[in-house]
Formats: sequence, structure tokens, C-alpha cells
Amino acid sequence: MPPALIGIDWGTTSFRAYLLDRAGAVLDRIEAPRGILAVENGAFAEAFSAALAPWLANHGRLPAILSGMIGSRQGWTEAPYARCPAGLRELASALMPVPGAAEIRIVPGLDQRDAAGLPDVMRGEETQILGALTALSIDGGTFVLPGTHSKWATVEGGRIAGFRTFMTGEVFAALRAHTILGRLMAEAPGSGSGFRCGLDAARRLATAGDLLNRLFSVRSLGLFGDLPAHELADYLSGLLIGAEITAAHRPGGETVVLVGSEALCARYRAALDCVGVASTTAPADCVVLGHLKIAEVAGLVA
Amino acid sequence: MPPALIGIDWGTTSFRAYLLDRAGAVLDRIEAPRGILAVENGAFAEAFSAALAPWLANHGRLPAILSGMIGSRQGWTEAPYARCPAGLRELASALMPVPGAAEIRIVPGLDQRDAAGLPDVMRGEETQILGALTALSIDGGTFVLPGTHSKWATVEGGRIAGFRTFMTGEVFAALRAHTILGRLMAEAPGSGSGFRCGLDAARRLATAGDLLNRLFSVRSLGLFGDLPAHELADYLSGLLIGAEITAAHRPGGETVVLVGSEALCARYRAALDCVGVASTTAPADCVVLGHLKIAEVAGLVA
Repeated sequence: MPPALIGIDWGTTSFRAYLLDRAGAVLDRIEAPRGILAVENGAFAEAFSAALAPWLANHGRLPAILSGMIGSRQGWTEAPYARCPAGLRELASALMPVPGAAEIRIVPGLDQRDAAGLPDVMRGEETQILGALTALSIDGGTFVLPGTHSKWATVEGGRIAGFRTFMTGEVFAALRAHTILGRLMAEAPGSGSGFRCGLDAARRLATAGDLLNRLFSVRSLGLFGDLPAHELADYLSGLLIGAEITAAHRPGGETVVLVGSEALCARYRAALDCVGVASTTAPADCVVLGHLKIAEVAGLVA
Repeated sequence: MPPALIGIDWGTTSFRAYLLDRAGAVLDRIEAPRGILAVENGAFAEAFSAALAPWLANHGRLPAILSGMIGSRQGWTEAPYARCPAGLRELASALMPVPGAAEIRIVPGLDQRDAAGLPDVMRGEETQILGALTALSIDGGTFVLPGTHSKWATVEGGRIAGFRTFMTGEVFAALRAHTILGRLMAEAPGSGSGFRCGLDAARRLATAGDLLNRLFSVRSLGLFGDLPAHELADYLSGLLIGAEITAAHRPGGETVVLVGSEALCARYRAALDCVGVASTTAPADCVVLGHLKIAEVAGLVA
């Protein structure tokens, strides 16, 4: 089948473009180190044309659906957040065309307020979740998207009902690189046993502040040789991911679906296993099925 | 009275020396940017002589008591940790002379294991606490030493019975400087209302992982203008200090004594007030009374 759509996951530090036919098969893909932070002076139109030059030359102006931070205030053009609950219909009807190119449309992110009135936001994950629903032929469950800012979303009847962000990945990176905790860490292949120690320690945390206390054990356990240097980074990772899961997971029979890079999903799968929670992992690149479904509902793919 | 003792609080980044008479009056003081990280190739003897040259020239070889990270593996000479519970007697009997200068002695830090077997350590704070006991003429209570690594210690019968470290200050600095949370923050004078919002939010945290979630509100509240940019840093500060206090404070009638810089103590005093905990602040430089008392018990001051 001929190409019918360009889907792009365009984030802060990454640019992943997919050439799709109308059944969602990936005909070609282009990745570039052209995250929005790497595009200067708002030259997104030029970055788009340059990165996709081969496709544009061969196939002309195809409809394009972009998701991720490209729709933020720092992106190409701001696509105002849609409000939860939201599914294909809500996102398709709120697509934001970029200036001067009506065939290029940006998926809005989602925002919500929790019971205490605190706002939370996502950009890009909504499209991954809708793609995962399609890939797995389901219309509900708990979706976990691990990463710099992990998202835990609840999906009901094909619509994202609500979500929470956990800064686990970014906190881990900042603590490792910019506090005393990184001093004793040795680079080494992932240590299953350090990770499990961290998960165990996380289960014994009673309050939020106990985490600020227990973090110091990354140092003290290293200082006394209770944990070898090459296990300390994984211990910290287990401590943070374990705390995230305890806070985020609501016991219940529903499917937990992991969406993300295989390495991170494997780490979360192991952590969920540890607390007896079974999980499914969505196929890599399922985001393209989100791009396709949104385009279909918006009437952009014949 | 003539000088009887040199007391030095020699930490990772600071060097504060006090010339004391035998009643504990401070006759002179010398501060220098000569924390142990600034002393190269282990040249601590030279750093000591250079910083204190005027005193050594005028008063000859006085006994000196040093506390802080100067006794760590990265310091002048390692003073092995004493074990809790420990008071003046235990510390005085474990003083570690530096190589080649028997009149210069380092106070050991303290270590302990909690109920779960996790180690914790302090270096320097034990001397501040013993000084505060003397300054306030008390022999027990809860002692809070806010800072990069906040310490909460329980003192009974003049001895430090146990303590916990909270990485509040270092986590705050790493999150502000090295994560997305700092991006929206404007430099401004301390904002009481941002701080109180953070304290309120901390009270609503149920588990450790909820902190990883709530941290993101520093960004989302800024993004939607719920909190002005100049209040965001104090909101983060309130969130972390509030979580620390909830985890660390055990309700009871005992005195809470704050020991540290006036600015930090004021911040913790306000946070403790918010949860109905009265506190006393120890006098600045009370650490010298710890140096003096330890020297007395060790028989170094006539």
C-alpha cells in the first residue's frame, strides 16, 4: 500500500518520524538528534523539511500528525491542552495545524486537576497510550510510561480518565550526577541484587520524608561496604521505582500495561513482579498507531 | 583569662577556628575558605599552621580540638566512628591525635544502625549537640541540625542516643539546579506564602512515592500560574522540609532544639510552628562549648 501518513514523536531531546500506510504498517522511519531543544530560533519548519527531505521528495505533501513537546510553548506552535477524560475523538477534534502548513497537525497534550486542585500535564504520552490500546486491542487498564517523568494513566472505555506524573527518572539522574550519592557508585552492568535491595527498602518507607532519610543509605551502605560500589546505582533506582509503584499502583484486577523503551520496561516489569503485579508490555513504536487512529478520526486518512 | 584551647569546626567546605579561654569565652576567631575539599595533597598540617599563624606565634602550642569532616577518610587522619549512645566521656576517650602533633586531636563522628540494620553517620554534629546542651543547660531533647544533610538526634542523660539523616538540603539544591523544576523559578527574596503552600502540600503526602509525584507540582503550578515564579523555590523548600518534619518528629513533650545558621533555623522554626511544635534555637557558635567540654573531660584544659 502507498504511504498515507507521517507520524512524528517529537520530544525535548528526540525526533522519531514514521512513514505509514493506511493500515498502520511502518514503511520507513527516520530518527534524528533534533529534539525541540536542538532546534534554534524556532526553525521547526526547516527542521521538519530537512529531516524528512527524502519522503517529501518522493511522496509530496502527506498529512502529518506530530505528538510530544513539539506542541508546547517552546515548540513549533502551542497546542493547548485537552482536558481529561479524553480519547481519540477529543484529541482529533483539537488537532492544531502549524502555521502555513495545514497538512501538519499537532496532537494536544492533556491536563487535569486532582482532588486537591493540583494540575498535572502530559504531552506525547496520550498518543502512545492510544496507540497501545490499538496494538493490544483493549479499551482500558492502567498504563505506565516509565521515563524522566513517569506517567501512570487510567484508561476507561478508550479514554484517558486521569493520570499522575512521577519525577523518578529525573530525580535519579540528578541525585546520581549532582549529589554525594554518586561519589561511591561504580559504573557496572545492571545489578539485579542492588535493585532488589532498593525495592525492599522502598517497601519499608512509611512517609514521604522517610525517602529523604533513606536516600542517605545509598551512601552509608556503600561507606560500610554493606553494598558493593557497583550495586549502589541500582539500589538507588530500586528505592525510587519501588516508592513510585507503592504510591501509584491501586490494587485491582485490571491490566497493567508498560509502554516505553525495552530496557526501562524490563526494569519496571521486574519491580512490579516483586510486588506481585502482573504486567503486559506494549509493542515498541506503538505510538504510530496512535498517530494513525487520530488521523483516521480526524478524516485525514482516506 | 589567657587562651586555653583552640576549637575548630572543619567541614567539607568550611573552616571555623575559635580561640577559647578555659571558661569558654571566644577570645578570637578565624574563618577561612579552607574546607577539606580545598586542601590539596593532604596538606592539612600546613593548612592548619597557615590559617592559625597569628595564634601560634602569640600563644605557642595550645591544645586543639577539631570536629567535622576533618576526621573522615578524606580528612587529616581518620577518627573511627564512636557508636551511639555516646556523650562527652565516649567522645573524649576516643579523640584521635593527628600524626606528629599530639596536642591536636580530632573528635570521632558517630555511627549507628537502625532497627532495619541500616547504618547512619554524623561528623561534627555530635560536637554541636554537646555544645548546645551546655549552652542551654539541659541534658536531653530532640536536636535538629538543618543543612545539606539534616540530622535529627535524640539526646538522653547527656548522651546522643540515636539520630537520623535527611538529605533535604542537598536534594533541594540538586532539584533546583539540575532538573526541570528550576526552569520556572525566579530569584527573589524568600517567600513566606510559597513556603507555607509547600508545607501544606507536604502534609497531604501519604507515601514516599507521593513525593516523587508532588515534586512535579513545582512545575505544573508554575506552568498554570497558580504560583508565581518567585514563590516556586520556597514552595519546593516547604515541600521537602515539611516532608522531613512529618517523618522525623515524634510527638511528645520534649524540647526541640534547633542548631545551625540563623537563616536555616528560622526556616525550620517556621515549619515546626506550622505543625504546632515549639522549638528553641541554640546560640550561634555553641559548637565551641562542645570543643571545650570534650577537652575538659579529656584532661586537656587545666
